[in-house]
Amino acid sequence: MSNTFGHIFRLTTFGESHGTAIGGIIDGCPAGIDIDTAFVQAELDRRKPGQSSITTQRHEDDRIEFLSGIFEGKTTGAPIGFCIANADHRSADYDHLKNVYRPGHADYTYQQKYGIRDYRGGGRASARETATRIVAGAIAKLALRAIGIDITAYTTQIGNVAITKNYHELDLTQVENNIVRCPDAAAATQMVELIDACRRQGDSIGGIVQCVISGTPAGLGEPLYGKLQAELAYAMLSINAAKGFDYGSGFEQVAQTGSSLNDTFYTDHDRIGTRTNFAGGIQGGISNGADIYFRVVFKPTPTISKAQQTIDMGGNAVELAAHGRHDACVVPRAVPVVEAMAAIVLFDAYLQNRSATL
Amino acid sequence: MSNTFGHIFRLTTFGESHGTAIGGIIDGCPAGIDIDTAFVQAELDRRKPGQSSITTQRHEDDRIEFLSGIFEGKTTGAPIGFCIANADHRSADYDHLKNVYRPGHADYTYQQKYGIRDYRGGGRASARETATRIVAGAIAKLALRAIGIDITAYTTQIGNVAITKNYHELDLTQVENNIVRCPDAAAATQMVELIDACRRQGDSIGGIVQCVISGTPAGLGEPLYGKLQAELAYAMLSINAAKGFDYGSGFEQVAQTGSSLNDTFYTDHDRIGTRTNFAGGIQGGISNGADIYFRVVFKPTPTISKAQQTIDMGGNAVELAAHGRHDACVVPRAVPVVEAMAAIVLFDAYLQNRSATL
Amino acid sequence: MSNTFGHIFRLTTFGESHGTAIGGIIDGCPAGIDIDTAFVQAELDRRKPGQSSITTQRHEDDRIEFLSGIFEGKTTGAPIGFCIANADHRSADYDHLKNVYRPGHADYTYQQKYGIRDYRGGGRASARETATRIVAGAIAKLALRAIGIDITAYTTQIGNVAITKNYHELDLTQVENNIVRCPDAAAATQMVELIDACRRQGDSIGGIVQCVISGTPAGLGEPLYGKLQAELAYAMLSINAAKGFDYGSGFEQVAQTGSSLNDTFYTDHDRIGTRTNFAGGIQGGISNGADIYFRVVFKPTPTISKAQQTIDMGGNAVELAAHGRHDACVVPRAVPVVEAMAAIVLFDAYLQNRSATL
Amino acid sequence: MSNTFGHIFRLTTFGESHGTAIGGIIDGCPAGIDIDTAFVQAELDRRKPGQSSITTQRHEDDRIEFLSGIFEGKTTGAPIGFCIANADHRSADYDHLKNVYRPGHADYTYQQKYGIRDYRGGGRASARETATRIVAGAIAKLALRAIGIDITAYTTQIGNVAITKNYHELDLTQVENNIVRCPDAAAATQMVELIDACRRQGDSIGGIVQCVISGTPAGLGEPLYGKLQAELAYAMLSINAAKGFDYGSGFEQVAQTGSSLNDTFYTDHDRIGTRTNFAGGIQGGISNGADIYFRVVFKPTPTISKAQQTIDMGGNAVELAAHGRHDACVVPRAVPVVEAMAAIVLFDAYLQNRSATL
Repeated sequence: MSNTFGHIFRLTTFGESHGTAIGGIIDGCPAGIDIDTAFVQAELDRRKPGQSSITTQRHEDDRIEFLSGIFEGKTTGAPIGFCIANADHRSADYDHLKNVYRPGHADYTYQQKYGIRDYRGGGRASARETATRIVAGAIAKLALRAIGIDITAYTTQIGNVAITKNYHELDLTQVENNIVRCPDAAAATQMVELIDACRRQGDSIGGIVQCVISGTPAGLGEPLYGKLQAELAYAMLSINAAKGFDYGSGFEQVAQTGSSLNDTFYTDHDRIGTRTNFAGGIQGGISNGADIYFRVVFKPTPTISKAQQTIDMGGNAVELAAHGRHDACVVPRAVPVVEAMAAIVLFDAYLQNRSATL
Repeated sequence: MSNTFGHIFRLTTFGESHGTAIGGIIDGCPAGIDIDTAFVQAELDRRKPGQSSITTQRHEDDRIEFLSGIFEGKTTGAPIGFCIANADHRSADYDHLKNVYRPGHADYTYQQKYGIRDYRGGGRASARETATRIVAGAIAKLALRAIGIDITAYTTQIGNVAITKNYHELDLTQVENNIVRCPDAAAATQMVELIDACRRQGDSIGGIVQCVISGTPAGLGEPLYGKLQAELAYAMLSINAAKGFDYGSGFEQVAQTGSSLNDTFYTDHDRIGTRTNFAGGIQGGISNGADIYFRVVFKPTPTISKAQQTIDMGGNAVELAAHGRHDACVVPRAVPVVEAMAAIVLFDAYLQNRSATL
Repeated sequence: MSNTFGHIFRLTTFGESHGTAIGGIIDGCPAGIDIDTAFVQAELDRRKPGQSSITTQRHEDDRIEFLSGIFEGKTTGAPIGFCIANADHRSADYDHLKNVYRPGHADYTYQQKYGIRDYRGGGRASARETATRIVAGAIAKLALRAIGIDITAYTTQIGNVAITKNYHELDLTQVENNIVRCPDAAAATQMVELIDACRRQGDSIGGIVQCVISGTPAGLGEPLYGKLQAELAYAMLSINAAKGFDYGSGFEQVAQTGSSLNDTFYTDHDRIGTRTNFAGGIQGGISNGADIYFRVVFKPTPTISKAQQTIDMGGNAVELAAHGRHDACVVPRAVPVVEAMAAIVLFDAYLQNRSATL
Repeated sequence: MSNTFGHIFRLTTFGESHGTAIGGIIDGCPAGIDIDTAFVQAELDRRKPGQSSITTQRHEDDRIEFLSGIFEGKTTGAPIGFCIANADHRSADYDHLKNVYRPGHADYTYQQKYGIRDYRGGGRASARETATRIVAGAIAKLALRAIGIDITAYTTQIGNVAITKNYHELDLTQVENNIVRCPDAAAATQMVELIDACRRQGDSIGGIVQCVISGTPAGLGEPLYGKLQAELAYAMLSINAAKGFDYGSGFEQVAQTGSSLNDTFYTDHDRIGTRTNFAGGIQGGISNGADIYFRVVFKPTPTISKAQQTIDMGGNAVELAAHGRHDACVVPRAVPVVEAMAAIVLFDAYLQNRSATL
């Protein structure tokens, strides 16, 4: 397995959905960063289940417990160990899934790869693991705040309900004002309705998260293979249910020509900038100081109440219908996860860049 | 910088567009693989400039020279050093660009990051580096062939000219039969016309490459952060001009519900499969044995003949127009690069998977 | 910091001497290994404080708690998270050391490097961290047992009391029969007397641990930089108080010539071996199938009761004398740590070697 | 294989003794370092064969050729590719060794590990590879010079001829004044005589290299597993023929007590130091600002002219006697290799330390 993310600022995680706890170790975090535990907890709360009517009604309190690496409120340079207890596990709920390969889940592939699997709640493949990313992302955000880098993600599309406005036409302070985390209130209402309709039908729906990073200095990103966009893509595609990533002009402007997409440089009072930002803030894998923006598409959660045909480990046909507690749409809860992973990538790039020159 | 790609099978590369040579070291290649040098050269020829009327007319012969790691035609387990001489460099062509920040290029960001840059032909940021990836990819392909894994990429869209058929409705043996590398002959003709039109206007155009990997056994891919799709996304976004990646249902099927995208399992004579493949051959980051397919979107090359406004290092306004030898569309030459990077990822995943069980 | 050890089988650890807990994550452990928790605990007990009259009288129960990665008694391929609670911390004992740089300790260097330090019990620099290595080493030993590799370390010298016999002249089953872990009973008695004498004088003493690895198949070790002896040296020099490493002929046979140290090959019933083993079981960085043996020298613990002159953070002269609970000699408790690190290196080398050939 | 050394400043090498060339790629070198090519060449000349009457009479000119990463005399941040041509290979000299396992060499282990080996001149196992380390070490030295760190190694023992003086009692400017690289002229004469005597007898002899690093600021080294001494040990044990490493009090002062080895702190005009330096300049894995010193023991080269009994790949007994060109003692040529590896470790530690604090 490969349970470590990052180069200098590195997160290693452990834990299954129904074990004692999940947690992780953050290594390579510079000393002297003030840790606002309440902020870390607030970030966890943005991801936790049961936070609104459109998320799963499972209740997990997700209390952060730091075990090391912080002394008198500051990081010491030592690894930061942390745990989040698994409070609400009803493992017996999963006994009927012991031998079943659920469609759209990782049951079959884990079994093929490892010859054994913890079938309870998806085991290691559960999206519950993303809570540990939130913790590392929160610490990265606290460091980035000191550097002046700010990261905001939001829901830009659910099913066929999409915001058509660009991020700079939106008021991103409104993201947390609705349960679907969409800064356009009208679209948000439609999105919530769509998710509700899906749930009532025992179905699920996906969508797109947009993320905007502002305040990045020019110079972050490591050519050649560690281009900033490659690190971001790697981070995003490691999130459960993510199916794609693009940045800047991306897939949407594929029909445009070079002359219309080239961002031309200009000077304004000794500050160099570009008149447009089709590049998405990155050129040659290195940040240019403009806003970095990218999209991540998430598939509908595969756990649905509708009856589905599948097989068990013996190859026998089985009919399956999920009972109860699951999200009809993971996108709103994916928003803080996207931010967290972006924060880890950016802070790691910032630290790596310290070796660019002597 | 970060010029190494891969975990067990690792490529490290060097070289600028106008230096003596580019090259690399392939480390971690198992011993005993037959190296068909003619195949490696043929793969390089698929990428080389000047191969057709729609590619740059620069002539680079791109002869592979292996320096180590191969003995009597077989890999020995020792690192494979190789060089490709830079034959046709006219560095003087670039003197006028010495102090200019070309729009859409990495001149500005390299200067900001390193305080110095080799301005000749884009230096390290030149797509010429991708030739070294072709070499490592060709060796990975030779190894994958023995395992039964086959990789084919093709052009599926140029500007607004797109194939609408799915890959399994196409005859992929036709990819190399036209200069744009599109298996649909009618679309290929339109694509060539579009590229020609762009060139005549001194402009450029981008497009989309689709890649299909067949014969992958179930079990490849390292959860949690090293999911197979994350490794592929990382590989693809490290290619010059790539702006996005998706796999399986991706961005295109974002409006569909879980019940329509869940691939249901069935058994056919002891073989387990899924009736559909919206997953794109990967579940939970691990291959499930079905075809893996993904898309990569490329922006138009920023080098265009049309006059563009920009600035120099002193902040002075400059008008810029490229002379001569450049591609109006990099997509056809990106096709073998996409294949090469996919081959490296797959072979690396294959080797990593050997530690999944004791 | 760099709190991860290993390449495929990787241990990442966290925790300070006086925090809530220490612990770690073992990543890359193959699935399907039977975990004998009682064995892991027994290994921890070999290292724990207070186990005999010559070790520190601090009492730490050091109970292993596994949090993930083990399901129904077997490893699943998922990361193995574990904790060991810090039971007996009397942090107030350390208040007087808050501003003092203890001689021979890492107080000064941590302060210089990080600008902050957890002064309680040595913080992250405490040898207490080695308990986490024991856990990973125990799991590696369980895997190696299945492969047929066996690792035994023992005390070969304390101060000027040394065993003169070679390891194959000793009965290594006697190692655990005395509290100093020396297989020569007469020497063991002298060693215990020497340690007792040192303690009575408020002083401390060092020594040498010898380690023997038998049953290693030929082929383990990764040239060129990852030679098996280099990995072992790296592992051993990362242990607190270790000051040197040698293997095979080492420092002791420096005066001998090539003709006397070359191990000549012979064949015995299709088995190839060498008549002598000055090489120490490794040639060119790769195991040759013979016993691997090496030595690690440990300095006396710097914590002593004798009064010492030092300074505080303000540069003022301070007289220091440790009170109470510390080892007069760490060597007996280092024996299982040496074994654990050797086990991690060997198992990691075994997994790496799976990619030597296709 | 594992042909990359270093974390941020990384060397990856390739090449066999009798291939076209050996070489490497230095990645992660900061931009803006002045490269004095003459200095790099002079360092190579210190290692090259045929430099004196006591080294092998093979003639290899070992000309450094840089292929990338340097522009107008300065590093650019791009990877530095380099080659050294293999000028004087007489591969036919090795045909009789094709099937033979030479005693003390890596023939047998490479064959066992990889199932194939380049038998000419030891192939990848040849110490010729160390020339590439000299190149990276020279660049690290140029960077360290700017930081104020200086590295000097010397021969302190050959066979039973040893210097008894400590390094600070010697005049280290005399090291290059004799062919054995010993700063004590009288000892040097005896060492040369001993080596000559060994050669006349068709035998070989080993010895010990001492290395001193001065000017290191406090704070370098990454606890916990990447302790500075662990990185140095790893580097040194990766050198051909190295059998052991110790630093500070090491093996030699094993009989002394804690009270005599603890270095007590004092203050002198705001500068903190220790009155003694048994620690060897490192505490808790972190440099403390004092001189770092360590020893590396090298075995006699296994290539000797005396007849030796061994076997071939078929298991048949063979008598072997080396003809001609080989060193009777590798220690004098190992001196610059030790320095080079130390320089890489120190510069890498310097760059890593930049992330210690925010």
